Amino acid sequence: MKRRDLLTAAGAVALSGCAAEQAADCSAGNSESFSWKMVTTWPPGFPGMQTGVMRMVEQIKTASAGRLKIKVYAGGELVPALEVFDAVSRGKVEMGHGAAYYWKGKTEAAQYFTTIPFGMTVLEMNGWLHFGGGLELYRELYADFNLVPFPAGNTGVQMGGWFNREINSIEDLKGLRMRIPGIGGEALARAGGTPVTLPAAELFTSLQTGVIDASEWVGPYNDQALGLHDTARYYYYPGWHEPGPSLEGIVNKTALASLPEDLRTIIELATATLNETMMAEFTARNAFALEDIENNPEVEIRRFPDEVLEKLRGYVDEIISELAARDPRAARINESFQAYKSRVARWTEISEKAFLNTRK
Amino acid sequence: MKRRDLLTAAGAVALSGCAAEQAADCSAGNSESFSWKMVTTWPPGFPGMQTGVMRMVEQIKTASAGRLKIKVYAGGELVPALEVFDAVSRGKVEMGHGAAYYWKGKTEAAQYFTTIPFGMTVLEMNGWLHFGGGLELYRELYADFNLVPFPAGNTGVQMGGWFNREINSIEDLKGLRMRIPGIGGEALARAGGTPVTLPAAELFTSLQTGVIDASEWVGPYNDQALGLHDTARYYYYPGWHEPGPSLEGIVNKTALASLPEDLRTIIELATATLNETMMAEFTARNAFALEDIENNPEVEIRRFPDEVLEKLRGYVDEIISELAARDPRAARINESFQAYKSRVARWTEISEKAFLNTRK
Repeated sequence: MKRRDLLTAAGAVALSGCAAEQAADCSAGNSESFSWKMVTTWPPGFPGMQTGVMRMVEQIKTASAGRLKIKVYAGGELVPALEVFDAVSRGKVEMGHGAAYYWKGKTEAAQYFTTIPFGMTVLEMNGWLHFGGGLELYRELYADFNLVPFPAGNTGVQMGGWFNREINSIEDLKGLRMRIPGIGGEALARAGGTPVTLPAAELFTSLQTGVIDASEWVGPYNDQALGLHDTARYYYYPGWHEPGPSLEGIVNKTALASLPEDLRTIIELATATLNETMMAEFTARNAFALEDIENNPEVEIRRFPDEVLEKLRGYVDEIISELAARDPRAARINESFQAYKSRVARWTEISEKAFLNTRK
Repeated sequence: MKRRDLLTAAGAVALSGCAAEQAADCSAGNSESFSWKMVTTWPPGFPGMQTGVMRMVEQIKTASAGRLKIKVYAGGELVPALEVFDAVSRGKVEMGHGAAYYWKGKTEAAQYFTTIPFGMTVLEMNGWLHFGGGLELYRELYADFNLVPFPAGNTGVQMGGWFNREINSIEDLKGLRMRIPGIGGEALARAGGTPVTLPAAELFTSLQTGVIDASEWVGPYNDQALGLHDTARYYYYPGWHEPGPSLEGIVNKTALASLPEDLRTIIELATATLNETMMAEFTARNAFALEDIENNPEVEIRRFPDEVLEKLRGYVDEIISELAARDPRAARINESFQAYKSRVARWTEISEKAFLNTRK
């Protein structure tokens, strides 16, 4: 089936009752109903991400009085998790949820719209996206794929990960097999480690059987759900590699354009709401889960030594320079990202950071 | 006019076209239109707050296909800024926007739902409200006033304020006349200063003419708009008194109940979106304005000495203990707030704070 046919078939399912002459009286004529499909990169029922998406589509259904119904498929249910981008781009489904850095094989520049190691916090990132030019660049990049991205969820600063050995110097990363994606993984490789890509469902067994020596995932709330505290002794912080990863709702551009303005606005409001509430959920539930983990005598929570963080920062700077040098789109986005970051980091220094440092 | 009459007159203005038998075809029968009034505590066009509210009502209008139109009146245009709570509570208007701590004269416990000095950051606060029991307590408190509150905006950590003298020790606060409201102001009084309440419009002249010696307002973006950098030399941080003030949308409970479910959900989504985008706007625009202010040779940006912050923290602890002792509702909210805060502060310590402290 061609893309156009797919969209027509899946999209507008009911041109309902109001005749044209009655349109003004019937919700400004917006009485057409839509049944959409949405695919995500998350396991079924996965806490925070998939549950947040399920909450969002319920809100869209209610806010539209049932005129926009979205059926959600978790990773692997309709398409494999890492084919979400393609499925929405090609119009096989209308909507998706995941993270831009999963699509670096399509366009490396996408990584800026999730997170850059040693980059920006969630507050800084949201400022860039909405008031610093980030979202325009994001939409420009995705337009080539017939996609419109909406920032739709954030976990905040992640944990550095679970390790079956102590990390006392940069030397301890040599030979370490660790599940860590993206630029963080490239930095590990430059330190002599071996980055591995594994889906969430395989982390527990891989760590427990020693297939890998270490794994990052998200933070206490999610990591506890995966049982990672039973697989490794050392839980390191801070998550230098993901300081404020922004997740995305993506909508097929043709499908979005087929909606009346009220439903397009409802999607905008519902994704922004998910951006807000997912972060709130991770903040609260990470705090609660951390308490459990700290009460577990089998786990030691440790801070990465300064030397390790500084070396990793050096590798990240190299990797980003190389990325910007080989990809003009990445170069343009990098310029906006870094210029904004240097300005906002000074503000964060005397606001959020200065306040937090008054705490003992 | 009685409250019921007011609401009927101001509320449902048009039972539009769809006959009962057509209801299922006409947006699930939700074709009734509403024209609401909204009053705010902010000056007309005030950047961030009033402009955010104006953006929100446009989104509500569009998302509802024009079925919920809200006319906004800035502070003083329909009722004085500090009568917003009463106007919405009594049903004179359906909706309002402001900050809960402005209503401490109605119920002192309300202050917890804006901010507590040395309390929680915006991320921590949103976690408490949405996933830590805060919003339930907030709605319970406001139910007595026939109001439903929605968290709807945050400025993040504020600045400590503009001072016409150096603050080198707690002694320097003695005799200081400073515009600072709420518990922060009470703490200043215990340090021997004189807290003063003044609306935004009077800050510039009061500081310039020496009627007051110091004033806090919000942060670089708003303070610059008020011209405060032309009135005092020293700009102190951090804003210990307002680490993450949550603003509120309040809706008259009767008016809210009169809406169909789709429009109620649209209000929920639009207020949550404002909570997100106002914070993003303040983050970005504070960063940009700070750069201007730092380039101004007439201004010195300084950090409060540790001794001053520690003394103020001690006063705040006393004030909060006394508040909880005299007001059972405040005691109950304080218990939830402090229990959550101690858990989330540990998480923030190893996530947001630990990450920010990797920055040089």
